[in-house]
Amino acid sequence: MMGKLKVYADRMSQPSRAVLIFCRFNGIDFEEIKVDISKRHHLSPEFREVNPLQKVPAIVHGSFNLSESHAILVYLASAFPGIADHWYPSDLYRRAKIISVMDWHHSNLRHGAVNYVINTVLGPATGRPLNPKAAAEAEKVLLSSLSKLEDIWLNGDGHFLLGVSQPSIADLSMVCELMQLEVLDEKDRSRILSPYKKVLQWIEDTRTATNPHFEEVHNILYKAKKKFEQQRSRVAETGTEPSNKMGGHSKM
Amino acid sequence: MMGKLKVYADRMSQPSRAVLIFCRFNGIDFEEIKVDISKRHHLSPEFREVNPLQKVPAIVHGSFNLSESHAILVYLASAFPGIADHWYPSDLYRRAKIISVMDWHHSNLRHGAVNYVINTVLGPATGRPLNPKAAAEAEKVLLSSLSKLEDIWLNGDGHFLLGVSQPSIADLSMVCELMQLEVLDEKDRSRILSPYKKVLQWIEDTRTATNPHFEEVHNILYKAKKKFEQQRSRVAETGTEPSNKMGGHSKM
Repeated sequence: MMGKLKVYADRMSQPSRAVLIFCRFNGIDFEEIKVDISKRHHLSPEFREVNPLQKVPAIVHGSFNLSESHAILVYLASAFPGIADHWYPSDLYRRAKIISVMDWHHSNLRHGAVNYVINTVLGPATGRPLNPKAAAEAEKVLLSSLSKLEDIWLNGDGHFLLGVSQPSIADLSMVCELMQLEVLDEKDRSRILSPYKKVLQWIEDTRTATNPHFEEVHNILYKAKKKFEQQRSRVAETGTEPSNKMGGHSKM
Repeated sequence: MMGKLKVYADRMSQPSRAVLIFCRFNGIDFEEIKVDISKRHHLSPEFREVNPLQKVPAIVHGSFNLSESHAILVYLASAFPGIADHWYPSDLYRRAKIISVMDWHHSNLRHGAVNYVINTVLGPATGRPLNPKAAAEAEKVLLSSLSKLEDIWLNGDGHFLLGVSQPSIADLSMVCELMQLEVLDEKDRSRILSPYKKVLQWIEDTRTATNPHFEEVHNILYKAKKKFEQQRSRVAETGTEPSNKMGGHSKM
């Protein structure tokens, strides 16, 4: 008996959302334990026992603990019975390709998206200064990653990465990453994403394939989006800088 | 029949070295095809057919092609018969931990080490300006990663990551990453590495466990180290900046 799976997550973190959606969609019996990064709960002694790296998501399954969202998704797809094969195919070649795109993700799409959002919206919203130079560098990485997604990884007949017709853990991870762009100013978001028609369709297809869980888990992000929109329109009306309405150090 | 494995690699790239050492140590019958990054061969139309992402290492095995060194190592450990289980354990929990440390690697050890070396030695040596601010930021990531290696990942009784007694593909990947610090000024290398006694021992243990292949594949790096040392002593004697002795755009 392993005991009930515990998932330590902050829904404002995109890798946390990917793990939560996977568990819910696949009917895994689990307990969600909120680790509020904006309140620095990830730095608490209690959470350090769960994950000495002090990052979310992390899981505890019986006496086994694990961090890093990709490793967690692979573990869940392998450890729980009845998970459909398309999430993490047993076929050697298909599995290798999914590992490849997930490895690529780290220094490309994730690196670009996280640093762009931090240096445009989240930094200023949490009291750190705007960093236009870092934002410009991150945007270059993000655009290059989107172009490779469009031309290479989504180059196939299917709706999902590597040209297949059903989503894998790679689709879930990477679409959740892109969802954080929701908090950007709509002009920025549209400028960045609109040239990539396949990427836009892929986001919709992954959302549809995993609903209602996708929307429910992303609800917190839509609320944050509204707050940032209100802040921006207040700045536009009054010409004053936004105060810290999000509280503490938020991490996307 | 898959045909003979082809490994496209530049031995100056640390993920290339990890794949080459793995193939040689495990007696895999393969052909090494040099893709000279300093001569921009990775941007050639021929190599684009092999890997549209234009990065080394990449493999072709029959009609199957694959990029990203971690995905390649997992594939090789699974596709070839007779590879000892410790390289990529079949046990669910040990395998999950190895995937976790390899995922952690991307945005931590690799991010810090690559950017530190580029912004101290390789940039100036290839005609790009020295960037002390970027070097200082990279050093912070590198030192934090080394400290987590020492205190968390190497915290166990064994000689290797996760406290085991025989190396996995994670050890090989991450030790090859750290080996690039050989090209630094000895003062810098010692300042960075010497506080981390377990890390230093782990590098030696991984070297010993995979020799003579480890040393043979790293030979190109030791030659580069000598060239950089000569350049530095020439600068110290004459006070002039080194010219580009490494040729073109070298990539570590």
